[in-house]
Amino acid sequence: MEHELKEIIKKCDTAIRQEDFDTLMNYYTDDAVLVVKPDMIVRGKEKIKTAFIAIAEYFNNSIAPSQGEMIILETGDTALVISQTILSADKKDSEYSMERKATYVFKKDISGRWLCAIDNSYGTDLISR
Amino acid sequence: MEHELKEIIKKCDTAIRQEDFDTLMNYYTDDAVLVVKPDMIVRGKEKIKTAFIAIAEYFNNSIAPSQGEMIILETGDTALVISQTILSADKKDSEYSMERKATYVFKKDISGRWLCAIDNSYGTDLISR
Repeated sequence: MEHELKEIIKKCDTAIRQEDFDTLMNYYTDDAVLVVKPDMIVRGKEKIKTAFIAIAEYFNNSIAPSQGEMIILETGDTALVISQTILSADKKDSEYSMERKATYVFKKDISGRWLCAIDNSYGTDLISR
Repeated sequence: MEHELKEIIKKCDTAIRQEDFDTLMNYYTDDAVLVVKPDMIVRGKEKIKTAFIAIAEYFNNSIAPSQGEMIILETGDTALVISQTILSADKKDSEYSMERKATYVFKKDISGRWLCAIDNSYGTDLISR
């Protein structure tokens, strides 16, 4: 059976593709952090939603993320997801990599739902670039 | 001021160098996971301690880890540390990389102490190797 986090991340990718950012925000903790780009980090659902709207516009409203190989390191209510994240978009001149090795930290809330607490699609490329 | 996690990781590196694994275990959660090598993951303090003893032996009891560039993404009681980890040892033929981009997940316990929950020195190299 696939890990439930794989299904959740798939739902997030669908929400991003459909630009359904209200649904997307259901998968984040209230104080989640998103690495928008290597030198720009935002915190909290409202700012994350605003960032996703800007990201969608940057990619000409055609962004479609998907995940390839994925490893989930889980302990208790915390999981580190290491995932090959492929971004597809009708934009030829993006200055950001379209194929990334991402790191996502998910936490289980009191009702047992996994929520994204740290969303860093740039993975370890944040250092020594 | 340096982030306190930087100091804690420095203490862990010292404990590994001194092979003081009882002190080292004070910095892990009870159910922490350690990626010993890409195809070997152990869980829990006892198994992590045993793994560190084996790692020390593998490196001819001369292993000295240190950290270079480090980025800490923190939210609430959870932090993702992305760190350039340099391993120095009197061993010329290690089959594992001696310079890594590591990912560590730390959690604050109820008394506010940071403990390592997920120790993956291989970072995103776990996928697409």
